[in-house]
Formats: sequence, C-alpha cells, structure tokens
Amino acid sequence: VSAAPASPFARVCIVGCGLMGGSLALAAREVPGVEEVVVTDADPAVLHRAAERGIGDRHEAEASTAARGADLVVLATPVAATARIYQSLADVIGQRTVVTDVSSVKAQVLREIEGYGEVADHAPNGRSRFIGGHPMAGSERSGIEAADGKLFQGATWLLTPTEHSDEAAFERLSGFLRQLGARVLAVEPELHDRLVAIASHLPQVLASTLMDEAADAAERTGEAVLAVAAGGFRDATRVAGSDPDLWVGILRENRPAVLEAIDGFLERLTTVRAAIQAGDWPEVRQRLARARAARERLPSKDRVGRLIDLVIPVADRPGVLAEVTTALGEAGVNIEDLSMRHASAGDRGALLVAVDGDAAAHRALGILERRSVIAHLEPR
Amino acid sequence: VSAAPASPFARVCIVGCGLMGGSLALAAREVPGVEEVVVTDADPAVLHRAAERGIGDRHEAEASTAARGADLVVLATPVAATARIYQSLADVIGQRTVVTDVSSVKAQVLREIEGYGEVADHAPNGRSRFIGGHPMAGSERSGIEAADGKLFQGATWLLTPTEHSDEAAFERLSGFLRQLGARVLAVEPELHDRLVAIASHLPQVLASTLMDEAADAAERTGEAVLAVAAGGFRDATRVAGSDPDLWVGILRENRPAVLEAIDGFLERLTTVRAAIQAGDWPEVRQRLARARAARERLPSKDRVGRLIDLVIPVADRPGVLAEVTTALGEAGVNIEDLSMRHASAGDRGALLVAVDGDAAAHRALGILERRSVIAHLEPR
Repeated sequence: VSAAPASPFARVCIVGCGLMGGSLALAAREVPGVEEVVVTDADPAVLHRAAERGIGDRHEAEASTAARGADLVVLATPVAATARIYQSLADVIGQRTVVTDVSSVKAQVLREIEGYGEVADHAPNGRSRFIGGHPMAGSERSGIEAADGKLFQGATWLLTPTEHSDEAAFERLSGFLRQLGARVLAVEPELHDRLVAIASHLPQVLASTLMDEAADAAERTGEAVLAVAAGGFRDATRVAGSDPDLWVGILRENRPAVLEAIDGFLERLTTVRAAIQAGDWPEVRQRLARARAARERLPSKDRVGRLIDLVIPVADRPGVLAEVTTALGEAGVNIEDLSMRHASAGDRGALLVAVDGDAAAHRALGILERRSVIAHLEPR
Repeated sequence: VSAAPASPFARVCIVGCGLMGGSLALAAREVPGVEEVVVTDADPAVLHRAAERGIGDRHEAEASTAARGADLVVLATPVAATARIYQSLADVIGQRTVVTDVSSVKAQVLREIEGYGEVADHAPNGRSRFIGGHPMAGSERSGIEAADGKLFQGATWLLTPTEHSDEAAFERLSGFLRQLGARVLAVEPELHDRLVAIASHLPQVLASTLMDEAADAAERTGEAVLAVAAGGFRDATRVAGSDPDLWVGILRENRPAVLEAIDGFLERLTTVRAAIQAGDWPEVRQRLARARAARERLPSKDRVGRLIDLVIPVADRPGVLAEVTTALGEAGVNIEDLSMRHASAGDRGALLVAVDGDAAAHRALGILERRSVIAHLEPR
C-alpha cells in the first residue's frame, strides 16, 4: 500500500528464547530500522543454541544487561513468571521504552504489573508503558529448535490496552507488530481471557482428552484404533502434541474462564448426546448444519482488500485509544494500521485507524457511533 | 519394490458419484489393466457433471446397466441405501464379480447383505463376494466437485471380511486397493464400528459442538472469539465443515457405538475438569503428557520400509483369511501386500501377507502364534 515504514524500535530486547521468543527474534531481524536484537534466557544452554542458530545479534546471560537501553522489551517467558520478571527489570528499562509480553492469559498479569483495575502510575506521563500482548500463533512444537521467523505472518496479535495504557506506546507497538506481518486486534484483558479460554484453551483440553481416550481404547481393543486415525482425527488431536508444562501454566493462570468454557461445552455435548440417543435426527442435523455455517464464516487468514482510515478526533480524555481499539476488537474488526495525526494550528489531533474494506469500515463506524465516538472515513 | 501388477479388475463400476465415488473413478483410471470405469448416479445432474469433468469412461443412468459385466462393483452410496442397492443389483452382478462399498459403518450393512452372523450362501462356492470396505480418507468438502484422484494415496483402507467372505474376492480387492496407493487393514465388522466411533465419529461430534459453542460465544461477546481463532482452533474444527446429511446418516447407523464413545469422552472430560477445579496440577500435567506421548505414537502416513512376507500354510479350514487379516488389523499391523501361493505337487497352498519391516513382522508372528496360526517369515 505504501513504502514500508521504519521500525519504531531500533533496539529490541527479547527475554526468553523459546518458540515465541526465538521466532520473534528472527522476525524482528527482518524489520527495516531494527538495528539490534538482544536476546537473553535463564538457561545458558538455550542461549548457546540461540547463538549457534544465529537467533539474535547479542546474547546476554543477565536479563538486566539485555534490557538496558532497549526501545522495546518483549517478555517471552512462562506466564506465571512474567510479572515478576517485569518488576525485576523495572529499574533498568528506560522511561520511553515500550514493554510487552506474549503470554496466553492477560488479566492477572496486568493486575500484577500495572495494578490494572486500580490506580497506576508507572510512566512519566502517568500512563503505563506496558502493553499486554498475545500472538495467536503457535505450533504443537516448542522450544528454540522450533523457532520460525514466519510464525507471525498473517496471525492475529491481540493487544490488551487498558485505561492506564500510554497511547504512544500502543501506537508504536502495534505498528511494529504489523511490520512482522501480524494483524492487530485490541480487546479488554478480561474479555481476552474468556475468548482464549474458548478459542484456544478449551480446544487444547478437548484434543488432549480425545487423544487420551483413543489411546486408552487402543489398549483395550488393539492398536487398530490408532491405525485407522484419518485426517479428521489427526487434525482434531494436533495440539495434543503441545508441551504439558506450558499448558499446565496456562490452565492454572486462566482457571475460572477455562472451567466456564469446559462447562459450556459439557452442557452442549450432553444435549447433542441426548438428541442422538432419542433419535431426534432433525435436531442433530440442525446442530451440524449450524456448526458448518459458523465454520465457513471463520475469517480467512489471507484476506486482502483496500484500506480505509477511520479518522477519530482525539478529545482530550484519557483512555480513548483503549476504548476505540477494544470496541473494534470485540466486534472482530482488525486494525490494519494505526497512527496519530498530531495537532497543529487550527486542527485538533486525530487517531487514524485503518480497517480492511468498506464493510469493515461501516461496521466500525456503527460501533463507534453507539459509543458516541465521532469519526469519519478517509479511503487511502 | 516390484513392477506394478496389472489390476485384477478390467471393468470397474462405481455406483454413486460423490466425493468418494468420483475420487475412486479418477484413481481407478490410473491403475494399469483397468480398461473401463463405468459410473452411475441416481441424480442425472451429478452424472452430467461427472461426464463434463471426465470422471469415468462411460456414464449410465441405470445402475443395473452400469453394473452388468463389471469385474468390480463399488457401492459409493449413502450408508442407509447400500444394502438396498446391493440387493437390487444382485441379479445383474456376475458370480465372479467382487462387490464392495465405502460406507463408514459396517456391521449393519453386512447383516443386511450377507446375513452376517447367520448362515449365508451367495457366491458359487457358498462364500460371499461382497467385502465391506471403508477408506479412511475424506475431506470436509463433499460432492463430485471435490473429487480427487489422489485422495486414497497413503490412506488406510479398512476391509471387514467375515467368516462368509470369499478369500479370492478379498485377495483381488485388497490388491486393487493397494494399487490405488492405500494401505489395507482388515478388522471385524463390529470392532470396525467401535473403532470408527472413537477415531472418526466422536471427533466429528466434538468438532461440531466446539464450533457451535464458539459461534454462540461470539454472538454473546462480540465477534472477536472467531477473529482470535488460531491454528489450533482451525485444526480442531476443520471437520465441522462436513456435510450434515452425510453425518446424520453415519451417526444414525452407528448410534450405539457413537453413544458409547461420547459417554467415554464425557466421563474423561469431567474428570479433567475436576482436576483443574481442584488445582490438582500434577494430575492435569500427567494427562496432558500421556496424551502427547500417544499423539507422537500415531502412525505416520509416509512411513516406508522393507517388505517381509508372513507365509501362512493354509489349512483347509474356512475363514482362515479373515482370522489372520483381522488379527493383524486389530493389532494395527498394515497389510502391505497379500497373495495366495497355490498348492502344487508336494506343497500345500499358502497365504502370503507382506508387512512393513522387521518390527511389524515379528509383532505379527507373535499375534499369529497366540492364535495357534503357524507362519514363517520370508523377506522379499
């Protein structure tokens, strides 16, 4: 659409060199304007492998050394450790540095880091430089050996700005993520946790349970149950190959939302079972057909179109960015690009949010109108 | 391994031109020795599309005209119609013709066709020329538009010979299926139905239920739940895109085994849920780890190796073929090739069953020994 802009971050520090951190280090290296990618990991052997594979320009054993002087710090560490590591680095991270993480559960981390839900005062302007992040990309493989510089291309990257978030930090971070090829979607932290419970954590539990059930049946009835496993079974159980420790951490951190998602599923499956037992085939058919229709509506990864800017005059009220981006995110409207038009003589500043195509733009306008946010459209 | 043998069937008739029938017509065309592929379908529009796409050499509106003179008749019709269509064609199908089907549920069809479980007398030698079949290949797409001549390459093709089956019919059919690129596995009809309930029908019900649950959540909480659906969710719900009518037929035909599989799953998921609620993370971790180990043991589709023949002297007792092939099938030992070494002066006849590699061969020997079946190995 336009010439690639330079990265808003010249020096990127990545704390933790697993699948996510390693992939991010590789991807960041390709972004114009990134001058140095510094990586660190608590495990010297992992750091050594990163150096061997050419992942990262500089390898630091101490996270505090790695983070010093960085423009962007990414915490790609297990979810339970994120807040603690952030706090341990708080003093060496610069005031204009943007910090994000990649963990799968958000509300608890934000409560710990920025006192989300309470009053916070972390950044020079009183706003938080920490923007929670969660790339919806992954693999059943894990560890630095699986690192892949193209992992994030076309993936949705969730950001969870809050009323405490620094708008400039959000803008710079989301621009950088788009340069990695990701699509940025902003949602509120609690909603994020409920969404991923359904779209990611529940499927993980189902896949592992199905695989476990089939393996048990194979022991009872002969191995043939696994030999007959065709494409459908392979697809359904793919994520059962994921790292158990990673997943215990995620399920633990997001327990209430996960239990709620499992309960919803149990109830629905019990209803389907009753319809099959009763021989209520019209009901069974209707459920299968409804599911098929929903599956066909799943957004495709490779959709492309014409960008249209929503131009939103920025009233001088805090949190307007989080309000706008999370309202669009919750309606499933991807933010394709985001920038600030700064105030000048005779003109107020404006937030420019680019979305993909007319339909999305008009949908977005309607969403903002219902929230009394004034906006107009400017096609690019 | 050796020069491709000619097809045991010169004229192949395919009744029903959906995904399976259409794909089979395309695949059969590529087998050396197949001289004509005749296709028929109850829907003239489908038959017309088949002719337009060059699927089949001859297109007959009447199944009885199509089946006359065929060496192999494949019933690629909805499962509920299979037995009825077989019976309507019984008089025009030659006595040496082999008949098979591709339906996803087997015991009921066999009961209807050959009086399976009772005494049967269909073929000249008193054995049944009908061998139940079920290719474990498919697609969430359906209909002739989705037909794909490579659909069966590397797929497992289940056959369900019974004590009534004609050995020569089984041998010719399994040889032909291997020429299509499939791996043949023989199992008993009732066990087949229990296996597919777990490996195919349960995953279908879970995928549709998960998709339905997520779509419902999207309505309640905004569209974002679908926008955040990453690879794991897409994999888990892929088969939810399948044809509802096809699946109602399958669930209906295999109801008892499907209910049993759903009950097993519900119980296991309830146990997992309790462990998550109780915060019993060692238990949760153990279950995830067990599932991962089982997932890693799933046989790979592209395994290749050295063929070894199990040479089994054929005692003059009926059903030895079904006994041997289903014993191996239930243990997950694929039959890579199968042939008869006919009796000559000073030599009894033998059944030659080729398996893939030393490990499979020794495993197969052990299985046969436990059943008092004498065999020895002959590497090719």
